[in-house]
Amino acid sequence: MAQQSALEYLSHGQTPFFRLPWVPMARPLPSGTRAVLLGVPFDGGTTYQPGARLAPYHVRRVSALVQGWHPVHRIPVFERAPAVDGGNVVFPPFHPERMRERLEAEVAAVAAAGAAPFVVGGDHSVALPCLRALARAHGPLAVVHVDAHLDTSGPEAWGEPFHHGTPLRHALEEGLVAPGQLHQVGLRGPWGGPGDGDPGAVHGARLHPADELQARGAAAVAREVREAAGDRPVYLTFDVDAVDPAFAPGTGTPVPGGLTSAEALRLVRGLAGVRLVGMDLVEVCPALDHADITSHLAAHLLFEGLALVALRGGGLSARCYSS
Amino acid sequence: MAQQSALEYLSHGQTPFFRLPWVPMARPLPSGTRAVLLGVPFDGGTTYQPGARLAPYHVRRVSALVQGWHPVHRIPVFERAPAVDGGNVVFPPFHPERMRERLEAEVAAVAAAGAAPFVVGGDHSVALPCLRALARAHGPLAVVHVDAHLDTSGPEAWGEPFHHGTPLRHALEEGLVAPGQLHQVGLRGPWGGPGDGDPGAVHGARLHPADELQARGAAAVAREVREAAGDRPVYLTFDVDAVDPAFAPGTGTPVPGGLTSAEALRLVRGLAGVRLVGMDLVEVCPALDHADITSHLAAHLLFEGLALVALRGGGLSARCYSS
Amino acid sequence: MAQQSALEYLSHGQTPFFRLPWVPMARPLPSGTRAVLLGVPFDGGTTYQPGARLAPYHVRRVSALVQGWHPVHRIPVFERAPAVDGGNVVFPPFHPERMRERLEAEVAAVAAAGAAPFVVGGDHSVALPCLRALARAHGPLAVVHVDAHLDTSGPEAWGEPFHHGTPLRHALEEGLVAPGQLHQVGLRGPWGGPGDGDPGAVHGARLHPADELQARGAAAVAREVREAAGDRPVYLTFDVDAVDPAFAPGTGTPVPGGLTSAEALRLVRGLAGVRLVGMDLVEVCPALDHADITSHLAAHLLFEGLALVALRGGGLSARCYSS
Amino acid sequence: MAQQSALEYLSHGQTPFFRLPWVPMARPLPSGTRAVLLGVPFDGGTTYQPGARLAPYHVRRVSALVQGWHPVHRIPVFERAPAVDGGNVVFPPFHPERMRERLEAEVAAVAAAGAAPFVVGGDHSVALPCLRALARAHGPLAVVHVDAHLDTSGPEAWGEPFHHGTPLRHALEEGLVAPGQLHQVGLRGPWGGPGDGDPGAVHGARLHPADELQARGAAAVAREVREAAGDRPVYLTFDVDAVDPAFAPGTGTPVPGGLTSAEALRLVRGLAGVRLVGMDLVEVCPALDHADITSHLAAHLLFEGLALVALRGGGLSARCYSS
Amino acid sequence: MAQQSALEYLSHGQTPFFRLPWVPMARPLPSGTRAVLLGVPFDGGTTYQPGARLAPYHVRRVSALVQGWHPVHRIPVFERAPAVDGGNVVFPPFHPERMRERLEAEVAAVAAAGAAPFVVGGDHSVALPCLRALARAHGPLAVVHVDAHLDTSGPEAWGEPFHHGTPLRHALEEGLVAPGQLHQVGLRGPWGGPGDGDPGAVHGARLHPADELQARGAAAVAREVREAAGDRPVYLTFDVDAVDPAFAPGTGTPVPGGLTSAEALRLVRGLAGVRLVGMDLVEVCPALDHADITSHLAAHLLFEGLALVALRGGGLSARCYSS
Amino acid sequence: MAQQSALEYLSHGQTPFFRLPWVPMARPLPSGTRAVLLGVPFDGGTTYQPGARLAPYHVRRVSALVQGWHPVHRIPVFERAPAVDGGNVVFPPFHPERMRERLEAEVAAVAAAGAAPFVVGGDHSVALPCLRALARAHGPLAVVHVDAHLDTSGPEAWGEPFHHGTPLRHALEEGLVAPGQLHQVGLRGPWGGPGDGDPGAVHGARLHPADELQARGAAAVAREVREAAGDRPVYLTFDVDAVDPAFAPGTGTPVPGGLTSAEALRLVRGLAGVRLVGMDLVEVCPALDHADITSHLAAHLLFEGLALVALRGGGLSARCYSS
Repeated sequence: MAQQSALEYLSHGQTPFFRLPWVPMARPLPSGTRAVLLGVPFDGGTTYQPGARLAPYHVRRVSALVQGWHPVHRIPVFERAPAVDGGNVVFPPFHPERMRERLEAEVAAVAAAGAAPFVVGGDHSVALPCLRALARAHGPLAVVHVDAHLDTSGPEAWGEPFHHGTPLRHALEEGLVAPGQLHQVGLRGPWGGPGDGDPGAVHGARLHPADELQARGAAAVAREVREAAGDRPVYLTFDVDAVDPAFAPGTGTPVPGGLTSAEALRLVRGLAGVRLVGMDLVEVCPALDHADITSHLAAHLLFEGLALVALRGGGLSARCYSS
Repeated sequence: MAQQSALEYLSHGQTPFFRLPWVPMARPLPSGTRAVLLGVPFDGGTTYQPGARLAPYHVRRVSALVQGWHPVHRIPVFERAPAVDGGNVVFPPFHPERMRERLEAEVAAVAAAGAAPFVVGGDHSVALPCLRALARAHGPLAVVHVDAHLDTSGPEAWGEPFHHGTPLRHALEEGLVAPGQLHQVGLRGPWGGPGDGDPGAVHGARLHPADELQARGAAAVAREVREAAGDRPVYLTFDVDAVDPAFAPGTGTPVPGGLTSAEALRLVRGLAGVRLVGMDLVEVCPALDHADITSHLAAHLLFEGLALVALRGGGLSARCYSS
Repeated sequence: MAQQSALEYLSHGQTPFFRLPWVPMARPLPSGTRAVLLGVPFDGGTTYQPGARLAPYHVRRVSALVQGWHPVHRIPVFERAPAVDGGNVVFPPFHPERMRERLEAEVAAVAAAGAAPFVVGGDHSVALPCLRALARAHGPLAVVHVDAHLDTSGPEAWGEPFHHGTPLRHALEEGLVAPGQLHQVGLRGPWGGPGDGDPGAVHGARLHPADELQARGAAAVAREVREAAGDRPVYLTFDVDAVDPAFAPGTGTPVPGGLTSAEALRLVRGLAGVRLVGMDLVEVCPALDHADITSHLAAHLLFEGLALVALRGGGLSARCYSS
Repeated sequence: MAQQSALEYLSHGQTPFFRLPWVPMARPLPSGTRAVLLGVPFDGGTTYQPGARLAPYHVRRVSALVQGWHPVHRIPVFERAPAVDGGNVVFPPFHPERMRERLEAEVAAVAAAGAAPFVVGGDHSVALPCLRALARAHGPLAVVHVDAHLDTSGPEAWGEPFHHGTPLRHALEEGLVAPGQLHQVGLRGPWGGPGDGDPGAVHGARLHPADELQARGAAAVAREVREAAGDRPVYLTFDVDAVDPAFAPGTGTPVPGGLTSAEALRLVRGLAGVRLVGMDLVEVCPALDHADITSHLAAHLLFEGLALVALRGGGLSARCYSS
Repeated sequence: MAQQSALEYLSHGQTPFFRLPWVPMARPLPSGTRAVLLGVPFDGGTTYQPGARLAPYHVRRVSALVQGWHPVHRIPVFERAPAVDGGNVVFPPFHPERMRERLEAEVAAVAAAGAAPFVVGGDHSVALPCLRALARAHGPLAVVHVDAHLDTSGPEAWGEPFHHGTPLRHALEEGLVAPGQLHQVGLRGPWGGPGDGDPGAVHGARLHPADELQARGAAAVAREVREAAGDRPVYLTFDVDAVDPAFAPGTGTPVPGGLTSAEALRLVRGLAGVRLVGMDLVEVCPALDHADITSHLAAHLLFEGLALVALRGGGLSARCYSS
Repeated sequence: MAQQSALEYLSHGQTPFFRLPWVPMARPLPSGTRAVLLGVPFDGGTTYQPGARLAPYHVRRVSALVQGWHPVHRIPVFERAPAVDGGNVVFPPFHPERMRERLEAEVAAVAAAGAAPFVVGGDHSVALPCLRALARAHGPLAVVHVDAHLDTSGPEAWGEPFHHGTPLRHALEEGLVAPGQLHQVGLRGPWGGPGDGDPGAVHGARLHPADELQARGAAAVAREVREAAGDRPVYLTFDVDAVDPAFAPGTGTPVPGGLTSAEALRLVRGLAGVRLVGMDLVEVCPALDHADITSHLAAHLLFEGLALVALRGGGLSARCYSS
């Protein structure tokens, strides 16, 4: 389950995530598998500009450039955390409820096999079935939610309870999140009204707006989240629009004033030590991207997430970089 | 209901179709209105690349460049056929059945007011409610279907009976099309199987593949369609992917080998004399467009359709151009 | 004068700024109007890449995504400061002098009605008539000039006294700026010669180059400006090229090394408390933009400016975000 | 005055038109010079999307790919018609009247030296000073006007008599065109009113709309124009928007339904035998182009024009291609 | 070796050509395989804009939209001609000679297995090793060379005998082409000198310039080529720059005036009946493409080539389309 | 050797770097020349996305916007350090060894003339011949290497010792770098293995990863480098991918998490006082750029490098900006 070499990869012509083995419908998984990457080509929950269904193809293609040694953590990520490309989870693009069923089942199966799912959306509505499956497998989760938006909307605005602005509301209401363990990072921009933050506030969500992260640094915010999460199972749901449109133009509901790519990567890296049980990376919209820069960033964010899994297999070693 | 002058238009800052009066939720319509342009920002029926929901904004914006005198037909289109921008037909983007209900009701209302609806999609699934409303208002229709695809798919491939590849099948099965009066123009590219053409063939559809149009000329095909339609009420459903991706890159399921923009315009112009009761222009996907060229083409195709309505108010005059 | 809801907005199909009521040639303004957004489709003062005349259409379109509650200031912006879309100020694009006359008259009328004009350019030459009208209405102004360039050029280089690199020179020379109250933020890049800064220096302009802002933080610079301005009437002229081309590629004379979008937004937000009597947002060039990111940023910057007006209607409340 | 070889050209790093010698402000021209290419970076006459001022840089850059042997005419173009890059004609971009004066003077000087000017705009308003200078030098001209528009507007719409939609009206009214010798090719799209064609009609202009050209073929139209022109001095004014936006997306007022690039090239090639005394190629707008395809087309159209000059130096030889 | 269904394909997440089985380094091939698609990510022979090495990834991705039934030939292409995706042929991108060796060996192996190689470049220098292997396997070939350029250059201009402008020269000189059996279609644009056509002329190459094809029609040219080829083994080498840049902007040395996509597809389709022993499709440069339109066209051209193989397995049935 | 004025520049139509005199194959150089800009259109060392060979044309074109007075250093750069555009260094694009020979010779000649070469790549493999020539001229160098990558790869991965990921390895092994004087700034992203840093470590290279620069500030890192370099001859090799893809999308191997443009400019500016003997700016890939923003950044980085040369001609004066 190591990465292919560059020439091996090139010879195959296919584009599995990170040049990893491709194990579609992966059951049983190769023994020792600790992470399974799954594409979810679904954008039926989008309120503004759709297109995220195409993201898995583009993130896969550019992820080939990501090598396996993490020079800050000083670990060979894919040796510590053997991973596979599990293919896509599919269903007709018109039936969100079937997407939720299928994805929840797939994620549950991955968790049952002792591995962490890494879900590449698709729009943010794919997060709910992941949260459901993992909370059932691991108990209520600490959720790290990186996003420009709160995503705790109700059905009022669009007459639909499950669109891409709602997954965190459901997660809170369904008890998938451990009390006080919703950590929302990257929020910014105007709200619809003063009550937008209420769903989270009621459940004790901790807000770390983009402004705060920019003022205190991504590492400080990450440390606070990490310490708050303790040894709980952690789910990381990363909406690429948390990052500024300059770094991630390929997304459907861009909000200026966001994180830099360096801050975003440092944020995930700074979670080192948490018990990550799954991650999603959502809202990459290739039709709006330029020179694949959003897809490249998505691949690197996923790699940082995979490194978190790899780190839990052993001790945290000293960093080789000076910071 | 004349067009605003350039400076009037500029001063408004808004972008109604063709610089026409904006009459949202237009009931009752200004007396004498013969055409109502409606945007339908819906792409929930898309199988591949979504984004057509944004088309009404961009087609509106660029349609300001289209002036009102038709130099081939030698008529002032908007004087002969007073028209308004009726705004958009809306509904939550997640509920296709509500789109169909709302759009059918709006189109029925326009028809009841004696005007022709010009629907700017949105994906091709918006055609079915238009056909339903107009067939109820006018009786079975002659349908001119310009498209790279047959759009007579059944629910097999995607487990969904109403996606954007199905409207013509429903129209045929629901008896909305007069016998032998489905005219399909622009078809090309591989099929899923030999039976793809059966739904149309059973109902006597006449195929005019892109190859045929290119060989015989758009005018000849148009003439044949016009003569076959006679004085029946005609509905024109124009999928912009009938045109080659070079001329219409902004579309979700492009097929090379299509019509040129000149052929497409000549095709619609060549229908002069038919009794047009409505038109849709669908599948413009702005996120995939370049320099708005697909939106410009869409605006001109709509103008040619409006001219068909205008022509029926009076006799057909000689052309001023040499062809 | 509240914003339309999302579905109301969608149904209209038109794109007024921020989903606000559209009151073209707005006289008399609705009672209670405190801000009027005006598009100025003029780029006849451009020295390098033109195209800013198209900005009003694109900024309008994307501004629909901006909601009305400001979560840092904790105010409903459009309830505190009722605003309308006043349409465009127009004139033939070839006659700068007529643009200046018309725009000055419109801005004067808005000011006379007790409202603040928010002018969406167009190139930076539109600032001068705004400054003239507002200085006449309110007396000499404190001017916050955010820009990569000094814009105090004389007629030497281009043989033209009123191009887009000159408005601040005229404003100083015409006494429109209160002594010592020109605050120039974001400056960077090479100059033509050591004397480029003289026009400002003579009048006591305070320079806050991009370097300084990046070192001290946007909030610190804003605070200094705010305190220096005191209770004087403040005019904010924001050239989007103050922001780095990564965040604002859609501009005609880009200079690398600029502000981030977060810094730019924080800068305007940090002016909370000043008596803002008008603002312009200029030099957005859509033809050079990608995925509308420059237009999105422009809309958010305007929203921060509108919030400044809203804040003066009542006390400044505590911030809900942690910074 | 031959072209540099590829490696010579590469080593220079500069980008003169067609790898020709660069002779700025070329007076006196090298003996034997028969054509002078001049860039005119002016777009101050544009009514919609500006940007054509940047065209000379991009057309120069890509023209390096054009070699010198014309395989249809079977002549070495630059040996038969020695040519130079005369640099740009400049003036402040704000003063159309100075542009007209300077350009007229430059063109007159080129003509006085016995060479033909090839002017690379810039917008179409650059044509008038060229026509003035050449009509003075050679007497009333046969004008071949290739364009999607009539360009005979008066000052009504924009309050300006010299914008880019007016040069042919002035040419006719000033007697620069020989009676019956305005040949307008490529026209299409709606007009403002039935009288739009009157200015030309009064002067006996011959219209060859795009429709006609597509029906009869470019060669037939070219032959008719050539025969009508006889041995009169011919000026070719080529607005790239005559070509369809698919082939020439980089232009400010695109009109679908235009010529293909093959038709455009064949049209110019088909003029072989006329006495060409000058040419302009206008309205290339690089900011709207993609992959330089509009600039590449412009370079090839200019080459076909240069070949017309070259052909008059000797007899027309047989074609090597089969058509 | 049938295509996967849409949902099967989606679930895999990988992108084999045409949803075919992926059989990398395919030896031994599945019994009955009649065509093997090979990617060749090499652009080290490019003289102007490189980037074709990325083409195999993008052509694979978009080829999933191509279905298997050919409605003109009325055959199920992949049932008649079972095909596989053989992965890429690889080698370090710096060593053209190793590319030539490896590719020649792979193609020879495919031919030895009784299948036809379909090579997706890569620049045009990949054609030579294919020709070498196939001429050794089948004897001297009839070569159909579709291209804007002659590709018979010698080493003079670039000091290199094997760049992408030379493969046909080598093929002729090495006797890989049967006498009089080089058919060059699509040629246009200026030459370096009158002798450019000599290498082909000496060997009896038949030129069908773009002009001729446009005048006579692609079907007529195809028929002539087909009849001339008779029952000889035919190799089709298709440089996508034969097609006009409007239809194929994603290519490194674009030449305006080229084929339409419809003409290009009709040309290949019109070869029905020839004994096709291999094909390459080269010079697709994704970095210069827009909305994947060049890659879509490439996929359809390959499909038409595969259909030629399929047709030889049985009789030619009547066409279902009218032309 | 001063810059041309804007109008002079415009009139020439050519695009020498920074509007400087163009002195191709500049031998002997104008007396007093202290810097020579050389384009190197070579990308034959690229492992992923090629295209950097086109950079010199685009960087030249946009560098015209850069004026000559440096307002931080308070010097007229081109008066203090007279500079010329030396054209391109050329060779067939297929022969890296000839590129290395020719470029080494040119750089040696520039150095022999007492000037500093400023080389605009091309890919990073152009750095080695520069380092060779300058180390021979000046002795072992202090090398400031700004890059996302280590560029000390060996021949293993690609079977080629001189590709664009190897120049620093050769420089170290050939003794071109003074002991302990390789300063690598901007590094980030995963490595192939723990030994990737070994080649540098063995030679005492000092790593300043992007993370460190972001934490400490570019000025602090620059100061450290400057002090370490002391009065040694310094070579600055700047790979534009050191900067984040948001600021520099036009590059072939992008890595998210990089420097901002402001940090990059401040880094070079902060080297004020070093004895710069040459610089290269590499890996700008125009086909992947948007709105020329990468080229604009490259031009400004070069200008900061030229200012370093200018500063050594006299004392460092106080800065005029506040930071």
